[in-house]
Amino acid sequence: MPRHLSGIQPSGLPHIGNYFGAIAQHVEVSMTADPAAKDALFFIADLHALTSLHERAELEQHVRSIAASYLALGLDAERAVFFRQSDVPEVTELMWLLMTVTGMGLLERAHSYKDKTARGLHANVGLFTYPVLMAADIVIYDADVVPVGHDQIQHVEMTQDMVTHFNTAFGGEFLRRPEWRLSPTPKVPGKDGAKMSKSYGNDIWIFEEGKALKKSVNGIVTDSRPPEEPKDPDGITSYAILELFLDEAERADWRARITKGGVGYGHLKGAIIEKMDARFGEARHVYRELLESEAGMRRLEETLARGASLARPMAQTTLARCFDAVGMGNAARRLRR
Amino acid sequence: MPRHLSGIQPSGLPHIGNYFGAIAQHVEVSMTADPAAKDALFFIADLHALTSLHERAELEQHVRSIAASYLALGLDAERAVFFRQSDVPEVTELMWLLMTVTGMGLLERAHSYKDKTARGLHANVGLFTYPVLMAADIVIYDADVVPVGHDQIQHVEMTQDMVTHFNTAFGGEFLRRPEWRLSPTPKVPGKDGAKMSKSYGNDIWIFEEGKALKKSVNGIVTDSRPPEEPKDPDGITSYAILELFLDEAERADWRARITKGGVGYGHLKGAIIEKMDARFGEARHVYRELLESEAGMRRLEETLARGASLARPMAQTTLARCFDAVGMGNAARRLRR
Repeated sequence: MPRHLSGIQPSGLPHIGNYFGAIAQHVEVSMTADPAAKDALFFIADLHALTSLHERAELEQHVRSIAASYLALGLDAERAVFFRQSDVPEVTELMWLLMTVTGMGLLERAHSYKDKTARGLHANVGLFTYPVLMAADIVIYDADVVPVGHDQIQHVEMTQDMVTHFNTAFGGEFLRRPEWRLSPTPKVPGKDGAKMSKSYGNDIWIFEEGKALKKSVNGIVTDSRPPEEPKDPDGITSYAILELFLDEAERADWRARITKGGVGYGHLKGAIIEKMDARFGEARHVYRELLESEAGMRRLEETLARGASLARPMAQTTLARCFDAVGMGNAARRLRR
Repeated sequence: MPRHLSGIQPSGLPHIGNYFGAIAQHVEVSMTADPAAKDALFFIADLHALTSLHERAELEQHVRSIAASYLALGLDAERAVFFRQSDVPEVTELMWLLMTVTGMGLLERAHSYKDKTARGLHANVGLFTYPVLMAADIVIYDADVVPVGHDQIQHVEMTQDMVTHFNTAFGGEFLRRPEWRLSPTPKVPGKDGAKMSKSYGNDIWIFEEGKALKKSVNGIVTDSRPPEEPKDPDGITSYAILELFLDEAERADWRARITKGGVGYGHLKGAIIEKMDARFGEARHVYRELLESEAGMRRLEETLARGASLARPMAQTTLARCFDAVGMGNAARRLRR
C-alpha cells in the first residue's frame, strides 16, 4: 500500500472521541501494514507538544500514556513503525533546510496558528513554525499519504508547497510530494452534547472503569422525559455515544425501541458501560500493566526504541540526499556513516 | 579566559575589510586559547548561509575557501575549536526547544530581518528564525562571551532573553547567559571610498597577488591633485587602506610626508601592494596548497572534522540537560550514549 504516516499528539488520557476519530483507524491500518515496506508509520509528536506544554512531568506522563494506550488497543508494532518524534533528531535538521525555502507568507496564512493564538495559547515561534516541523516529519519518511481531519488539510498542502520550493530551488526530485486523505471522522459528542474534547472537560477516558466509569457516564446530559415517552434517537446525546459501539443490526434495534417508547436514559447509559467494558475491558489490563509493572515499562520502552531504530535510518537517507542537494556533503557523509 | 565563540559567514572570498574587522582578532584569540578548557570556538555558519544562498557548488566553495583562509592566516586550530556548524546537528534540536519559549514579538523586533528583506532578500522563514538558530549556536557551547559588531548586539540580547525564558519555563539554570563584547572595528573603506563590502563590489581580496592585485589596487579612487600638492591624509582613500597595515611610527611618517606634499597616489598604491605582499605573501601559498593539492584538501577536512569531534560532545552535554529539563529523557539518553 502507499506509505501512510500519522502523528499522534500526546495530550493526556485519550478519550473515546480520540478512539473513534483516530486510534481505531490507526490500529486497523497497522494490522495490514507490510513490515518489509515500512508502509505505515505512527509517531508520538512530543516535539510538537512542547509548543503548548512546559511541564516536564506532564509531558513524560502524556507520552507514556498515549504509547501505552495505542499498544493496549491493539496497534501492531511488529508490522507498523511506532516511535517517538524526538528519537529521530534528523527532523529538526530537515526543518531548518525547509525553513530556508519557505516564504513567510505561507506560514502567515496558516489557520491553525491564528486559531491557537485566538484561543489564548502563547504566540511562540514554535507554534508559528509548527507547519514546517510537520512538513519535515512527513517528507523525511517519503510518506505518500497522510490521513487528516478537515482542519489538517492545509498543513499537508503547505507541505506540498515546501516540497515544490525545495525541489525547484535545488533542481531535482529530492523530496516526495505527499497527498492528504480525508479520514472518516464520526461526530463524537461529549457528555454535555458539544463535541467531545479534553479542553471542554466533557470527555470520557477510554480506560475508565467501575465506579469511576459509572460516574462519568452518569454525567451525560439528559432531560426529564420519562422512559415510556417515544423519542427521536437523533436528539439524544447518550444514544449518540452508544451508537458508536453498535453494529448495523443493533443500531436498527435500538432506534426502533427508542422511537416506539420504553427506553430510558438509564438504559442507554447502562448499555454504554456494557459496551465499553466489552470493547475495552481487556485493553484496560494491558494498559495498566504497561504503565504499572517493571516488565510493562520495559516493553513500552523497547517497543518505542525498536520503532526509532527502524524510522531513523529512513530519515537519515532522506536528509543525506537533501544535504547533498544544498552543498553540505560533510553533513550527508555524517548521516551515511 | 571566559569562553569565546564566533560564527563566520561563508560568504565567498574574504577581503581585507573582513581581515581587519574580524579574522585578525580571531587569529589572535586562537593563539592564546586553552585547548583543555576549549575556551575559544570558531564555526563556519553554513546552515545560516542557506538563508540567502541556494547554489550547491557556491556554498561548498565558500565554506572551503573561508576555512582555508582562516588556516592560512594563522588560526591555531590546535588551541581553538574550529568547525562547521552543520557538523553539530544538535544545534537544530536546541533551536526547536528555544523556539517553543520564544515569543513572536521578540523576533518581530529584530533589525536584521527587516534590513535584509528591505535589501531585497527573500523573506523566508529561515531568515526570520535565524536569531533562534544563532542563540542555539551560542548557548549550546555554554559560551560566555560573543564578540560582535554594533549590528549584532541585538542578537546576543535576544539570546539572553531566550535563556531567561527557557530557564524560567523549566525552573533551573539549564542554559548559560552569554554576554556580548563590542569588537574594535576599524573603518575599512572600499576602493570607491564607501565601506568595503562584497555586495558593493568595492573589495580587495586578501589573497590577490601579482597583476591581479595591481589592477585591483589601481582601481582605488583618486583625484587629479599632483603628488607635490600638500594633502590632508584623512581625505585619501588609498591612504586609509594603507594605514591599516602601518604601525605607529610608519603612520606618523606617512602622515607627515602626505601633509607636506610629495606623495602621489601611485606611491600610496605601491605601498599597499608592498604591505599586502609582506603580510599575506606566505599565507597565499598555504591558501592555494590547502585548496589545490590532495594533501591540502585532506588537511582541511581533517582539521574541520577534528574541530567537530571536539565541539559535538559539548553540544550533546548541553542538549541532554535541556531534554531532561523539558521531559524528554529518551532524547537525553540518546545523546549521552
